[in-house]
Amino acid sequence: MTVSIINIGDELLIGQVVNTNASTMSRLLTAAGMDVHKTMVVGDERQAIWDAVDEAMHESDAVLVTGGLGPTKDDITKKLLCEYFGSELVESSVALDNVKRIFESRGYELTPVNRAQALVPKCCEVLNNDLGTAPCMWFPGKTVLVSLPGVPFEMEWLMRNRVIPKLQETFHTEVITTKNILVQGIGESFLSDLIEPWELALPANIKLAYLPVAGMVKLRLTVHGNYDPSILKGLYDFAGQYIVGEDCETLDELVHKTLIERCKTLATAESCTGGNIARLLTAQAGASAYFKGGIIAYSNEVKESALGVKHSTLQAHGAVSEETVREMVEGVRERLGADYAIATTGIAGPTGGTPEKPVGTVWVAVCSKDETVTQLMHYGDRRQQTIDRTTNQAYSMLMKLICQKH
Amino acid sequence: MTVSIINIGDELLIGQVVNTNASTMSRLLTAAGMDVHKTMVVGDERQAIWDAVDEAMHESDAVLVTGGLGPTKDDITKKLLCEYFGSELVESSVALDNVKRIFESRGYELTPVNRAQALVPKCCEVLNNDLGTAPCMWFPGKTVLVSLPGVPFEMEWLMRNRVIPKLQETFHTEVITTKNILVQGIGESFLSDLIEPWELALPANIKLAYLPVAGMVKLRLTVHGNYDPSILKGLYDFAGQYIVGEDCETLDELVHKTLIERCKTLATAESCTGGNIARLLTAQAGASAYFKGGIIAYSNEVKESALGVKHSTLQAHGAVSEETVREMVEGVRERLGADYAIATTGIAGPTGGTPEKPVGTVWVAVCSKDETVTQLMHYGDRRQQTIDRTTNQAYSMLMKLICQKH
Repeated sequence: MTVSIINIGDELLIGQVVNTNASTMSRLLTAAGMDVHKTMVVGDERQAIWDAVDEAMHESDAVLVTGGLGPTKDDITKKLLCEYFGSELVESSVALDNVKRIFESRGYELTPVNRAQALVPKCCEVLNNDLGTAPCMWFPGKTVLVSLPGVPFEMEWLMRNRVIPKLQETFHTEVITTKNILVQGIGESFLSDLIEPWELALPANIKLAYLPVAGMVKLRLTVHGNYDPSILKGLYDFAGQYIVGEDCETLDELVHKTLIERCKTLATAESCTGGNIARLLTAQAGASAYFKGGIIAYSNEVKESALGVKHSTLQAHGAVSEETVREMVEGVRERLGADYAIATTGIAGPTGGTPEKPVGTVWVAVCSKDETVTQLMHYGDRRQQTIDRTTNQAYSMLMKLICQKH
Repeated sequence: MTVSIINIGDELLIGQVVNTNASTMSRLLTAAGMDVHKTMVVGDERQAIWDAVDEAMHESDAVLVTGGLGPTKDDITKKLLCEYFGSELVESSVALDNVKRIFESRGYELTPVNRAQALVPKCCEVLNNDLGTAPCMWFPGKTVLVSLPGVPFEMEWLMRNRVIPKLQETFHTEVITTKNILVQGIGESFLSDLIEPWELALPANIKLAYLPVAGMVKLRLTVHGNYDPSILKGLYDFAGQYIVGEDCETLDELVHKTLIERCKTLATAESCTGGNIARLLTAQAGASAYFKGGIIAYSNEVKESALGVKHSTLQAHGAVSEETVREMVEGVRERLGADYAIATTGIAGPTGGTPEKPVGTVWVAVCSKDETVTQLMHYGDRRQQTIDRTTNQAYSMLMKLICQKH
């Protein structure tokens, strides 16, 4: 079955907000075995929305529309869909109960503007939006149309819990299994050469995708029908030394799961990553089981006072050096009393580079009670990329230390 | 004049890659006074591309197409456009010189596959791509079509240096100004009620959009033609107490700019936000001018040892309390020697709540040498949302302290 996606919003059309909704929806639909035919963005403008809806209704089995459902005046989707389907707005008790529940839980009074959110076209079915006041509306028919709020977390929750299950039920889609393998320390094209014999021998029901992200490559197997885990043996034979883990989307998720499983604790000392390593871990529920804390040692004074890096080390070797990163990682592990530690120090740029240490020079270290491992990296001059790659490098080194694979 | 954008690529359509090209292009076009009518994503599939191009050619003055220009087999845009415009492929000396220059500069030998990149439809004009081997092709006509490579940095460079100047020259475009006002501490619907008289009185050439993000609302004015700054007076009369700043996309950007302008320094002590407050600031180039560092005090031991929170305070009031957050914020400011400090402590959930302090209970504090301000917040049980809202709350409180607006 095919799906078209329409994301509505001036903020998307003028580029003020990156349209992550389209990629989130596409990813979830693809993983559920549905083909995304096209995605479109249109502004909060009646004729453009009408045309996009009308076009999509004629080319796919289902049309998913996000945005334009809020209580403010620029949101016009609901009235337009009501007219498109020749229906009339009625108050939905399901939607009203939901609006009331949410306002009560927040201790706010229900205003007429908010009560109006419970008005929906008579011909649609309301799919309950547990996380917000905007209703999710399912318009049945030969082509199904579903209208969702544009707020990303509400949209994602509704997709996972309401829309995709109902689409699967309505359209009887095939079972698809996906399997992720996280690879780090080798570029996409070199990895592709290395595992080519294995890739060429994959059975026809398995599709392999290379997903490079910030210095890591996620290999994703998409399996239509039966999945035999022994298929992975060949992959390990060719590229085992670069494989960091399986069944996670990201390396931070892998570190999180591993530390919880092994009942070990972690501390971080971040300079150039500025807290990014810690925040990705602590964004996951349950991080307090292993994460003791971290020091963001941005200035040299803080490296000395909070981590115990020696003044003489900074003087002799500089903040971006093996000696400094070693004292940082060992200092934070001891001071915060953790089993493992991570440290980073580098020049993220765009300024601050020298001929000897150009922008993109980064030292990463991990340690346990018994062992410290350091690594020098050379990234380019793109600041966010350097932060993201350093972060993944650190997680990967930690995983190898924990699993004694280095 | 109106523009339609078509981004081609299976990786976009299945959600593997977030389509940042659409937002970058839209932002640049809007800033140059052009109206983006619609953006579309289609896969590497002939019929879908053809239909999208044909549709766009009939509804806008210019059509910008990205992707499908690489040397690999799945890239089919060039041949398709050649056929669409009834032209034939010829070798362009401009494009060939460019390919040769780039291969020479990298020390690679020119292969036939790469030489073929210099083949372009006879009817188009090649706009030189200084950063890559894929040509940028301008097809003149009543509706102009421009084909750009999908590599983000090549596309952006071409847009700024080749495509937009030529579009402005070809179509005589109107000036559009956008103005952002960041509002915090009031929900979208309440804000809408509060400023309704002002909104209804806006002149016809000004469009207002509400963009809620993580506890903040960004108000965006889009002005066609002349902009009179005094229009904002009414907004300040109604909602001045909630306005944190102007002319930034985010509160972290506002804090970053303000601290640099005022030559003041900052330190952070984060518990429930886990480094998020620091990493958003340090993701911006130049943060080392003001950011001394931070302590991510996730465990109680770290709150004591690294921040100097008294054991008796934690015993008597708990980690999530006004007393603790006050000692955290004052401790980190003093220990790291900064002008200002931020601290957060809370229960991000989903577990860890109690009847007295349910999940979502958060204390936020900011301080200067002379003054400490604390605030209790009650967020819901969504971890990432609590982290994001706490982060914006902290930035907003800091801005008010710096500007003495509280």
